[in-house]
Amino acid sequence: METSRIAVKGIEFGGPGFVVIAGPCAVEGAEQMELAASAVRRAGALMLRGGAFKPRTSPYAFQGMGEPGIRILSEAGRRHGLPVIAEVMDASQIPGMLERVDVLQVGARNMQNFSLLRALARLRRPVLLKRGFCSTVREWFLAAEYLLDGGNEQVILCERGIRTFETALRNTLDLSAVAYAKLHNRLPVIVDPSHATGNRDLVIPMSLAAAACGADGLLLEVHPDPDRALCDGPQALAPDEFQTLMEKLPKVLESVGRFLGAPSLSRASV
Amino acid sequence: METSRIAVKGIEFGGPGFVVIAGPCAVEGAEQMELAASAVRRAGALMLRGGAFKPRTSPYAFQGMGEPGIRILSEAGRRHGLPVIAEVMDASQIPGMLERVDVLQVGARNMQNFSLLRALARLRRPVLLKRGFCSTVREWFLAAEYLLDGGNEQVILCERGIRTFETALRNTLDLSAVAYAKLHNRLPVIVDPSHATGNRDLVIPMSLAAAACGADGLLLEVHPDPDRALCDGPQALAPDEFQTLMEKLPKVLESVGRFLGAPSLSRASV
Amino acid sequence: METSRIAVKGIEFGGPGFVVIAGPCAVEGAEQMELAASAVRRAGALMLRGGAFKPRTSPYAFQGMGEPGIRILSEAGRRHGLPVIAEVMDASQIPGMLERVDVLQVGARNMQNFSLLRALARLRRPVLLKRGFCSTVREWFLAAEYLLDGGNEQVILCERGIRTFETALRNTLDLSAVAYAKLHNRLPVIVDPSHATGNRDLVIPMSLAAAACGADGLLLEVHPDPDRALCDGPQALAPDEFQTLMEKLPKVLESVGRFLGAPSLSRASV
Amino acid sequence: METSRIAVKGIEFGGPGFVVIAGPCAVEGAEQMELAASAVRRAGALMLRGGAFKPRTSPYAFQGMGEPGIRILSEAGRRHGLPVIAEVMDASQIPGMLERVDVLQVGARNMQNFSLLRALARLRRPVLLKRGFCSTVREWFLAAEYLLDGGNEQVILCERGIRTFETALRNTLDLSAVAYAKLHNRLPVIVDPSHATGNRDLVIPMSLAAAACGADGLLLEVHPDPDRALCDGPQALAPDEFQTLMEKLPKVLESVGRFLGAPSLSRASV
Repeated sequence: METSRIAVKGIEFGGPGFVVIAGPCAVEGAEQMELAASAVRRAGALMLRGGAFKPRTSPYAFQGMGEPGIRILSEAGRRHGLPVIAEVMDASQIPGMLERVDVLQVGARNMQNFSLLRALARLRRPVLLKRGFCSTVREWFLAAEYLLDGGNEQVILCERGIRTFETALRNTLDLSAVAYAKLHNRLPVIVDPSHATGNRDLVIPMSLAAAACGADGLLLEVHPDPDRALCDGPQALAPDEFQTLMEKLPKVLESVGRFLGAPSLSRASV
Repeated sequence: METSRIAVKGIEFGGPGFVVIAGPCAVEGAEQMELAASAVRRAGALMLRGGAFKPRTSPYAFQGMGEPGIRILSEAGRRHGLPVIAEVMDASQIPGMLERVDVLQVGARNMQNFSLLRALARLRRPVLLKRGFCSTVREWFLAAEYLLDGGNEQVILCERGIRTFETALRNTLDLSAVAYAKLHNRLPVIVDPSHATGNRDLVIPMSLAAAACGADGLLLEVHPDPDRALCDGPQALAPDEFQTLMEKLPKVLESVGRFLGAPSLSRASV
Repeated sequence: METSRIAVKGIEFGGPGFVVIAGPCAVEGAEQMELAASAVRRAGALMLRGGAFKPRTSPYAFQGMGEPGIRILSEAGRRHGLPVIAEVMDASQIPGMLERVDVLQVGARNMQNFSLLRALARLRRPVLLKRGFCSTVREWFLAAEYLLDGGNEQVILCERGIRTFETALRNTLDLSAVAYAKLHNRLPVIVDPSHATGNRDLVIPMSLAAAACGADGLLLEVHPDPDRALCDGPQALAPDEFQTLMEKLPKVLESVGRFLGAPSLSRASV
Repeated sequence: METSRIAVKGIEFGGPGFVVIAGPCAVEGAEQMELAASAVRRAGALMLRGGAFKPRTSPYAFQGMGEPGIRILSEAGRRHGLPVIAEVMDASQIPGMLERVDVLQVGARNMQNFSLLRALARLRRPVLLKRGFCSTVREWFLAAEYLLDGGNEQVILCERGIRTFETALRNTLDLSAVAYAKLHNRLPVIVDPSHATGNRDLVIPMSLAAAACGADGLLLEVHPDPDRALCDGPQALAPDEFQTLMEKLPKVLESVGRFLGAPSLSRASV
């Protein structure tokens, strides 16, 4: 099925270019984001990620910096010419994010938060819709329908692992669902191997596998100092590991008729 | 572990009395609710359920009547002396529900909607927290902590089936989780065998099993005419089936030192 | 659906009497089995269990006593007038078991060991067929068809928990599958809450729930000294806990029109 | 972790060469196997597969040709210079297979058939051990220990999909488990995307992904006429589709420092 192309400040999802989004799980401060943005830009990432509102299983865990985190993310992205993506947990957070965030991410736990989906459907801003970790592919597609049917066609799907009986890794990355989505849905599909595996040693092989099976991009956790990360450190790549991955991707992409997306001229002039 | 007792207009959850909540999946109109309320009251239910905001997998399915549905539910409950429970999907719906709904239900898909939990934590109104269909018991308890830690101690847990590989039934009712919760958590726990099984033939045996393993009550779908239900008809009991169940429950409850909760005097005088 | 009745030395499965089978996970020696048989007989069990061939995940774990264990089991059963059940892992073990074991058990891992099923189908000896922990109800019924179609109609089904994402307990006891089997299959169905939960604190409530939802009996682990068991001690009941359960069962059974099976006259005269 | 190398008539598993095994799910007759062997050899497969003993969920489904099927498989392999692999379901089948079959396959349902594993451990013949569709990686490794500890070090692991809640495809191919096994186990690991997906449209992308994430080879279903296959036709590739896959693999393999294994000189002279 022909994939729709969705442009974010000149970066195209769903075309022949493969888009790598990278950055830390959570925004922890200006210095961390400056180091992260600089590192991922240097290695070739096209967008910067960083969470300011963090959905945490326990109320006693670090919940994110909130709106100040959004500002820090946005400024780091601007300095390095990187559009930014951040998770929105609730419709009330939308207004504060609209002027600073280029792609609004719906997290796995909110894939069926239909109130949130309806609010996002009314925007003219791209949405990254993560598959719920216990959602079938059919439910994922129908959650996307809430956005499409509501008027927002700028939807990017993201597979991030499903919950199974296996306990060796955090979740089970379902790349078959990616290949299936490429056959049966016209939306671009990217893969988040960091959350799926919960283990940085597996991020490189699973990123290459994602590229080989037809994904349109990656959403990766890269932290300037993973051992000191406030959130999900064990799954974050260090900058040199990310660099290694970015050097391996082009050949795999070439083998399936794709290429690693490069910064566009317009953005380079930022 | 000693179970906390939570009172809803004189009905006690977590005490020796077993509380049966019944009614249709969705409010469809005043006549349907009048018939439903009358039938469940006659058979001995202590509370009335009925959804007005329905979280549906597909945007093209019936989404509920919204606020008019809340009014119809509330009036039917009042006429029959039954406190009412309805699902809240979003914090924005809370104000309109507060004056008409006695227990606010958080549905399985929203168990980790932390924005909604934080909003409910600030209320002085009982909350029924359904276990997510892919949530571990630990995650369920931690979701309840969002309410407790936020200041609302009136929390009732509800097991409604988990998602497994089995496809013969809608979900797999996890009664072990109920028995486990009774040992390790002080909150009352009720069981929804209607959603769990998706099949009315199994509702009676699983209701009896729930009573036998220590649950504090049931949340049941009863529809005056299940074959014409707009939502989940195959799992709704008809009034006479519900009556049959209510006649079987007392003996099972007696065998585990409990009794079927009866309308309190204060409510009887309504 | 009318349940077929299967008789084992005067004990009837599938009739109004509820059959409790109890004993240790593994035969460890003559003294252990004597204590176990004596304790379970005294509390009212009708059959004695004990494994001699143990399917263990690791080759380095205790693998069972083998044929000497079968002899010890059989003698303990004979002394106390209790027919015995033991697991058969391979067709080559059948001849040695036939003269000493009254019911041959197919374990969960072997539910789809079709060679073993075909061998058992040619016998005139009752078979207890455990549901595989990842088998659907449909697959369980079809595994039973290998026995029935092969000529052995003396088949008893046993639900023992399925594998899910939940990690608080060993497996998820699927009592809905029991109620479903009672509606859609004519074979007797018993429940093993010991393996399902892996936790003795949950065995009593889940046994009562099994009785309430329509099961025809229980398969329970009871060990004279659970803390010293060579296999699965944490899920075994001590004799006094088993006694407590046996005192609670009659009332639950009465509430669903059943009774706790008692030793038959013929056996009592042993 | 350094991977052990296992040689099957000059074909090396676990070295830099990537080994493709192909052929039909079931041996159906001499003509079918001649066409299949010819097609897979021409496209570059190094080994021929074909089942003669088929573990089928239902006793009423086609159960395989048995020993005559083994002969047909063996002769087709010999004519085309292809070593052969076939599934063994029971120790009693081993003697008849030893002189004709080069690799004995343990199917997913038998991964924990410890009697069978112990019998295979005593041989000097390579064993392909499929992961059970509900087995954890740890259990898979421990099942391999039954072979290794019993004396047979020629073990090849095979991931073939796990059972999850997802129903769009037959199983969920767990490529993370492959990458994990490459890090934590020294045995070669190959992938069976045909059984995992149950859908030929997904076999090519998932084969490429398997190569990219570090697998040592593939086990593929190729049938000369998939629409007439007696078993699992929807997941079999037609010869031209298989040819297409074989043309795509080299580039992906090159990108991860591997190459597509080629027939050795000794075999070419057959």
